[in-house]
Amino acid sequence: MQKSGNVSNSVIRRLPLYYRALSEIEREGKLRVSSAELANRMRLTASQIRQDLNCFGVFGQQGYGYDVAHLRVSVEELLGLNRAHPTIMIGGGNLGRAVAIYLREKGKERGYDIQAIFEKSKELIGRPVNDINVLDVSTLRAYCHSNQPKAAILCVDSAAAESVMDDLYSGGIRCYWNFSHYDIEKHYSGVVVENVRLSDSLMTLSYYIAHED
Amino acid sequence: MQKSGNVSNSVIRRLPLYYRALSEIEREGKLRVSSAELANRMRLTASQIRQDLNCFGVFGQQGYGYDVAHLRVSVEELLGLNRAHPTIMIGGGNLGRAVAIYLREKGKERGYDIQAIFEKSKELIGRPVNDINVLDVSTLRAYCHSNQPKAAILCVDSAAAESVMDDLYSGGIRCYWNFSHYDIEKHYSGVVVENVRLSDSLMTLSYYIAHED
Repeated sequence: MQKSGNVSNSVIRRLPLYYRALSEIEREGKLRVSSAELANRMRLTASQIRQDLNCFGVFGQQGYGYDVAHLRVSVEELLGLNRAHPTIMIGGGNLGRAVAIYLREKGKERGYDIQAIFEKSKELIGRPVNDINVLDVSTLRAYCHSNQPKAAILCVDSAAAESVMDDLYSGGIRCYWNFSHYDIEKHYSGVVVENVRLSDSLMTLSYYIAHED
Repeated sequence: MQKSGNVSNSVIRRLPLYYRALSEIEREGKLRVSSAELANRMRLTASQIRQDLNCFGVFGQQGYGYDVAHLRVSVEELLGLNRAHPTIMIGGGNLGRAVAIYLREKGKERGYDIQAIFEKSKELIGRPVNDINVLDVSTLRAYCHSNQPKAAILCVDSAAAESVMDDLYSGGIRCYWNFSHYDIEKHYSGVVVENVRLSDSLMTLSYYIAHED
């Protein structure tokens, strides 16, 4: 299963849904699945499913469908979940520690290996989170040049995110999981950013709670 | 500032962006702001800004713009951030504890007051997170009927989320912050759900890391 050159972002964004649906079907003990059943679980159409998978050179067999285990493994590899991408985190406060613990728990099966957390607070530096070292953010640039991490997770506020971006970018990091509100894509080219806007999501929900009646 | 009947979801979803932009402008010490400047910060057009705010009965003054502090307070009230919505959490594992700590830190200014966490694990029940009690999930239905929480945060897996939804819904809860993959809106009507798909976001990013070269 190979990525062809022109896979659209929207197809890529659906891959995690395939992965979850296939893992679920596999747990149910089913050996094969039709595009119609996948479509039903994923709330897509069967032709959409066939089209998506064709992008990656996967074709179902007429009257048989797809081999569940084989397809799940293929999607897993395609998503890079069988790797351990070397990753660093910026920010070892409550949010950072929470995300690090969450990832450590899920991490091995999700492709990420957090190698270090960078902090500016003297109180937090040197106190490991689980077994992840918390290092002084002033050493970040040198660390990136020596260790070449592939991804960075930003668990700091917007100003702090802005202040580390040059170090991260010049250190070659192009993939970001961004919990800050700093707009990375506006200021840096050729990056891939997944923004997680927890507070926007909370505020939107708060609006509906306040106007419920 | 009042919600008119027909405010679209996309306008509501932009309100947190207004709140953040206005808070930032206020911190910079500016007293007024034009729709053009707001537009520039928010990457919208000035006419979009005027249109959005008109929905809530707010009109800028020609040649003066908007009063920053007044507008920030109005948006805050509109978002219900000046309240403390009684909220419960399902799941006191690592993710739940992390989210509870994050919210406790942000909570007072964000409108949420977590009153209890519900768990099925005997090991976690009775061990408070900060000062939030962790209660037996078997008491959930009775708790909802007595205490009428307005919102629930689901920090459990899909199967566990499914198993508590009837209790939550029959207890009158219509607003959900959902970290699980359970599709609440598919099964319950008249609910408002903010889904946070951390693992989808991680998997998508992993794809790009794996295919970076």
